[in-house]
Amino acid sequence: MVSHKTTRRNLLKTVGIAAGAGLAASYLGACARKEDTKPATAGGTAQEMASQQSSGTSGELTPDLIDKAHETVVKQFPAKTEGEGCLPLEPKIDGDVKVYELVTKEVDWEVKPGIKIKAWTYNGMVPGPILRFTEGDKVRVVLKNELEESTSIHFHGLFVPSNLDGVTYVSSPPVKKGETYTAEFVVRNKPGTHMYHSHHNAYEQITRGLAGCVIVDPRDGKTFGETQDVVIMLNDGALGYTINGKQFPATKPIVAKKGELVRLRLMNVGQLYHPFHLHGMPMKVVMIDGYPLPQPYYCDTLSLNPGNRFDVLVEATEVGVWAFHCHVLTHAESQQGMHGMVTAFIVQE
Amino acid sequence: MVSHKTTRRNLLKTVGIAAGAGLAASYLGACARKEDTKPATAGGTAQEMASQQSSGTSGELTPDLIDKAHETVVKQFPAKTEGEGCLPLEPKIDGDVKVYELVTKEVDWEVKPGIKIKAWTYNGMVPGPILRFTEGDKVRVVLKNELEESTSIHFHGLFVPSNLDGVTYVSSPPVKKGETYTAEFVVRNKPGTHMYHSHHNAYEQITRGLAGCVIVDPRDGKTFGETQDVVIMLNDGALGYTINGKQFPATKPIVAKKGELVRLRLMNVGQLYHPFHLHGMPMKVVMIDGYPLPQPYYCDTLSLNPGNRFDVLVEATEVGVWAFHCHVLTHAESQQGMHGMVTAFIVQE
Amino acid sequence: MVSHKTTRRNLLKTVGIAAGAGLAASYLGACARKEDTKPATAGGTAQEMASQQSSGTSGELTPDLIDKAHETVVKQFPAKTEGEGCLPLEPKIDGDVKVYELVTKEVDWEVKPGIKIKAWTYNGMVPGPILRFTEGDKVRVVLKNELEESTSIHFHGLFVPSNLDGVTYVSSPPVKKGETYTAEFVVRNKPGTHMYHSHHNAYEQITRGLAGCVIVDPRDGKTFGETQDVVIMLNDGALGYTINGKQFPATKPIVAKKGELVRLRLMNVGQLYHPFHLHGMPMKVVMIDGYPLPQPYYCDTLSLNPGNRFDVLVEATEVGVWAFHCHVLTHAESQQGMHGMVTAFIVQE
Repeated sequence: MVSHKTTRRNLLKTVGIAAGAGLAASYLGACARKEDTKPATAGGTAQEMASQQSSGTSGELTPDLIDKAHETVVKQFPAKTEGEGCLPLEPKIDGDVKVYELVTKEVDWEVKPGIKIKAWTYNGMVPGPILRFTEGDKVRVVLKNELEESTSIHFHGLFVPSNLDGVTYVSSPPVKKGETYTAEFVVRNKPGTHMYHSHHNAYEQITRGLAGCVIVDPRDGKTFGETQDVVIMLNDGALGYTINGKQFPATKPIVAKKGELVRLRLMNVGQLYHPFHLHGMPMKVVMIDGYPLPQPYYCDTLSLNPGNRFDVLVEATEVGVWAFHCHVLTHAESQQGMHGMVTAFIVQE
Repeated sequence: MVSHKTTRRNLLKTVGIAAGAGLAASYLGACARKEDTKPATAGGTAQEMASQQSSGTSGELTPDLIDKAHETVVKQFPAKTEGEGCLPLEPKIDGDVKVYELVTKEVDWEVKPGIKIKAWTYNGMVPGPILRFTEGDKVRVVLKNELEESTSIHFHGLFVPSNLDGVTYVSSPPVKKGETYTAEFVVRNKPGTHMYHSHHNAYEQITRGLAGCVIVDPRDGKTFGETQDVVIMLNDGALGYTINGKQFPATKPIVAKKGELVRLRLMNVGQLYHPFHLHGMPMKVVMIDGYPLPQPYYCDTLSLNPGNRFDVLVEATEVGVWAFHCHVLTHAESQQGMHGMVTAFIVQE
Repeated sequence: MVSHKTTRRNLLKTVGIAAGAGLAASYLGACARKEDTKPATAGGTAQEMASQQSSGTSGELTPDLIDKAHETVVKQFPAKTEGEGCLPLEPKIDGDVKVYELVTKEVDWEVKPGIKIKAWTYNGMVPGPILRFTEGDKVRVVLKNELEESTSIHFHGLFVPSNLDGVTYVSSPPVKKGETYTAEFVVRNKPGTHMYHSHHNAYEQITRGLAGCVIVDPRDGKTFGETQDVVIMLNDGALGYTINGKQFPATKPIVAKKGELVRLRLMNVGQLYHPFHLHGMPMKVVMIDGYPLPQPYYCDTLSLNPGNRFDVLVEATEVGVWAFHCHVLTHAESQQGMHGMVTAFIVQE
């Protein structure tokens, strides 16, 4: 019989996030204890197990293999992969204009260890780099198209002149293969969270990776008091169910010290709605689509509809490793263990 | 020509809820009147009609058979079936601790008359029994696993120590076949509505039935003034489109006297969103995920996303039998009449 | 290299909306400029291109054909088609009663140029005509059924006596082929936006077109200050992804002068959720399901769940042609260009 009392003796001692796959093992040592004394019958990776299973007769994993698959994939978290999306893009300065250079190109993008998919990217990453503006900035976005087909750029949520809106043949021309397109405008939005993405053959182009986050920062530096500011962009389609371009166990955890106030900028450019559930602590929803809610509210599950942006605050009061995942369970778990839209919010002592 | 004026002479005289399938007939007598004088061409049950239809040539029901199918299934409502979910679980007292005992086991669960499906249950019922705590309680939940595979228990929305969070290999070990697991903690949440469910092979286990409601009651007894408190948990998957484990016409109506204030605790553990529409009266949304909304609002259709809990109040001002159903119509109706996620909110004089 | 500065010299000079398909070309002249100098390899319509493509070997359009398809369909917007839905229905006056006459019948409904689908309609249009009441009105709705099968009418969101609620065999009898049904009631709702639709074999009947809008106007004439009042009803199913019964490019744009305050009454009677994204300007959500929000909020993407009604206000501050579309991209775009749930919000100087 396993007995877990409310003492903190088993609470995980978190040790930092740089160590890669080995990290999960140390986080998870306490609760994996029981498994150590009762090893599952099969070793190897989830892939090997799947292979074993498919040569069997039942078409289903045995209970022991289900457990082993769950354990194996968790112990890989956070798994190292090549490439990281959503990194900030440092602008060049041209007089009083901040210049952001984007290049669309196809790359082999590793969504989880060993699985590379042809992605269409801004600057070789999925999601594209974060464009970070300040209220009132004069900005120039220069897009060079190195894809085989035309593209465009739409600034989703930003006030821009109609002819820079990026809807091909409605507001902007397509940017053909090899061409460069320039959009220059003054940032008129108040502080908030927005997006940029292709608006040409968009179902294909966005689901393959052509989307990124735009942040408008306040001129006066006023914030919600957050100690961390984290962008999370969901997608589904050609690259699978992804958080910032990666599938579990290659998703990146959010790591905070107890007492921090973490701002999450949550958005979804996929085709499906994803109700994200945070274990352990609630989310305080403070902005929708870059507009402050007059009455923020708390929840622990937030339905991230395609196109919306939610700014939420999480007070890191509860020490531990907390799952943060889509509650459409098929987007997050199978007999082979957790996959896809799962990450962790880790609160350290 | 059928003329219905706004007099109340046809309003249904509701007579109580214990009478079972005969009840619907009495509720529905007034409006079935016309049918009595123009009987449809076919008698028998919806199943018999389906059988007739499948031997036909058109692949579709005739208009008369569509009507008859609709009538037949409504007249069965509320249909008697074996087993009832969401019943309260009386705790045992061990000193200052309330002890709740859960046993997971497979049972044949009757989702509608004559249709039994192998369900995975807590204590033999779907949804599992309601765990009702009071703020500040010291509680112990003891889970014995009599399934063939491992499981776990996650307290969705509750503040618990990380090692009791139930995510296997992340926060808690799997509870293997035959094992017993104990979680003991102090109830730190404010009053509100939460859930418990498996977090291991969860897509399989939850959709087969392993989920239940947790209610945290106020220490000071303060409520919204409700005269009834009703839990409604939706699910979709192995058991079909269900309300508290049953498909229409085996769903249970909500029955109130005129003037009552009914609190509904609505939640969804399925894979799909279900926008629930209440006929006749609006719902006042007062809490989300166990947190009071600073500004409650009214609606008559509420999108129940997987993982969320909504506490709503319905003032029973309108006498009659009011449909309460998912407005994704394929979850609620076909040529064979209403099915799945349909029930009624009945207001009696 | 294409350079678009923030000057307004390229902003579209909008010239009115009556000119039909030629209109789009004039709207879009500025941005189509580049294409004029680099014509795509193929002429012809999207249909011709699809035909070319299907005889090819790759199963995909070439980049030039993708561009051409996008251009072709945009230049058809707003395309002329036969029939228009959501027109107001003038009541007859019978003493102190306003009488609204509806006839259900099947018609060939042109959803986009050349594509006619058998629709089930109220008064020959999809969506049905708008029933516009004033608070406290005594109204009579007379429904004659000229379909081959029974139907019913449910007043979705309105306070009506239970026996007029339209759920067949629960609250109302089916209205059989050739029969006429009359519902007479006093309008007890406060001002707001509601619907009427079949509640018999409803999945079939609603998705084929049997739904319309009900507006309750204030007795005292008080509004939000809107200069325009636009109904937008979404549907998906037999008629495809439609806005007011039409697919892009046959959808009708919203056209406002700069400075106008446009009220949109948004609703969805389909089976899928449709997160609608307005380019250029935010929407202020002021009512849900006919109930004022105590704290209106702003957003640019609004998830329109089946059954809900949202009253939103758009301040027409930004001159231009702004896309207004479902952000589930498969409902709005493919390699063949935009389709389905796309229209434009046009702001003229």
